[in-house]
Amino acid sequence: MVLYVVGLGLGDEQDITLRGLNAVKKSKKVFLENYTSVLGIELSKLSEFYEREVVLADRDCVETGADQILEDAKDHDVSFLVVGDPLCATTHSDLIIRAQELDIKVEVIHNASVMGAAGSCGLQLYSFGQTISIPFFREEWRPDSFYEKILYNKKGGMHTLCLLDIKVKEPDFEAMCRGKIVYLPPRFMTVNQAVEQLIEVEEKRQEGAYTRDSLCVGMARLGQKDQTIIAGTMEELLTADFGAPLHCLVIAGDVHPLEEEMLKQFRIKH
Amino acid sequence: MVLYVVGLGLGDEQDITLRGLNAVKKSKKVFLENYTSVLGIELSKLSEFYEREVVLADRDCVETGADQILEDAKDHDVSFLVVGDPLCATTHSDLIIRAQELDIKVEVIHNASVMGAAGSCGLQLYSFGQTISIPFFREEWRPDSFYEKILYNKKGGMHTLCLLDIKVKEPDFEAMCRGKIVYLPPRFMTVNQAVEQLIEVEEKRQEGAYTRDSLCVGMARLGQKDQTIIAGTMEELLTADFGAPLHCLVIAGDVHPLEEEMLKQFRIKH
Repeated sequence: MVLYVVGLGLGDEQDITLRGLNAVKKSKKVFLENYTSVLGIELSKLSEFYEREVVLADRDCVETGADQILEDAKDHDVSFLVVGDPLCATTHSDLIIRAQELDIKVEVIHNASVMGAAGSCGLQLYSFGQTISIPFFREEWRPDSFYEKILYNKKGGMHTLCLLDIKVKEPDFEAMCRGKIVYLPPRFMTVNQAVEQLIEVEEKRQEGAYTRDSLCVGMARLGQKDQTIIAGTMEELLTADFGAPLHCLVIAGDVHPLEEEMLKQFRIKH
Repeated sequence: MVLYVVGLGLGDEQDITLRGLNAVKKSKKVFLENYTSVLGIELSKLSEFYEREVVLADRDCVETGADQILEDAKDHDVSFLVVGDPLCATTHSDLIIRAQELDIKVEVIHNASVMGAAGSCGLQLYSFGQTISIPFFREEWRPDSFYEKILYNKKGGMHTLCLLDIKVKEPDFEAMCRGKIVYLPPRFMTVNQAVEQLIEVEEKRQEGAYTRDSLCVGMARLGQKDQTIIAGTMEELLTADFGAPLHCLVIAGDVHPLEEEMLKQFRIKH
């Protein structure tokens, strides 16, 4: 049978394509991957709208083989829903390869992704360099390998899209030591936190990938009704209020006149 | 009233989102931009499915002010349809800025774009550098400013997405000299032509951005039922058959093991 890997886009249940909805309606089982991104609505609303039970597939389920999903797909059509576009990250490549090895037909249904919608920020998508991910720093773990990538993009005049960390269904190790399985509440990195971490790394590395005065554009809930886009210096974005998740950030490289013009509407108000 | 700028995705009339379809149905006038990309279906089929007359908006119409579109949008809802995502290129920024200056509310409805769907090629989208456009070379006009961009991406280990030229509704200057307005038939650059031009430029520049042995991935009709993806060296792609438009091309930078694994399925057959 067919494993449909369906992009849901960025906002709510209305952002699925007609082709995607058709696949969901044909499917006996519907899974939603919920650990790399989140939609702006409740799961129950999605279930109701699609007239299907939607089962959450967490990281454990998907990365440890997705056996349940593949088992189901042998006998009947199954939809695996992904927020954004299914192939914008390699997260789901493994599932697709495994399905093909089992002779399950795979159909990918594309949709808008943050990597495309980032064009909303007024900076030209053609001029974006490699994308980086900024992880939550912990006391003893402050990895900054993204720094060289920003630096390289910057030297080439390119903008850098920064995807910000998400922690969903993280185990509570303290509780586990007491023999209980408990998950921490979900956490989503804000633009403010990302900028704070970036400034810390620049202060340590001092190679001039950016400064507190570098122009950035922070974006929240991209593609949703209440999306918020604010352009300003890193210093300014440290305290700007972006509201609810998801947030992402662009560090501007060389800015061209048409980009200037587009950015005007998003400049921070003082 | 509202100017809806609606992404149609990459394939056919089924790739619009529910939100997009809703906007089209609310609109009194519907325009389709048809000079930066094309869908895989006829205009008449689109009209029929949307139950709206769809008016083609060519480059002249959009770039010289889009007066008709904006005039209509003052009095009633208008949809401006764009293949792919509306904000992946700056082409439509000007229309949006002008509408806002006229106090027309603009709502952008995102969709899949080639820049996202290029992730289908098996190379990780995060590792793509700046995107280039390859124009049709003419006898006296062989611009190669894209070369430095590929070189810079390559030195940083990044992949390069190459968008290939489209000529739609180009005036026939010979006929115009005889006083007639005649348009040439549309032309779409193939992967073969793009690779041929790239090799010519490398032979001239000789800075080693790539060679005939460089790994590339050619893609045709991305996101459509019969999409074709073939990975091979430039030499191999010179003669590979990709079929009907649209084509695009990725020049690989550093290839990681998971990418190798994904690419296997697309390797050219000898």
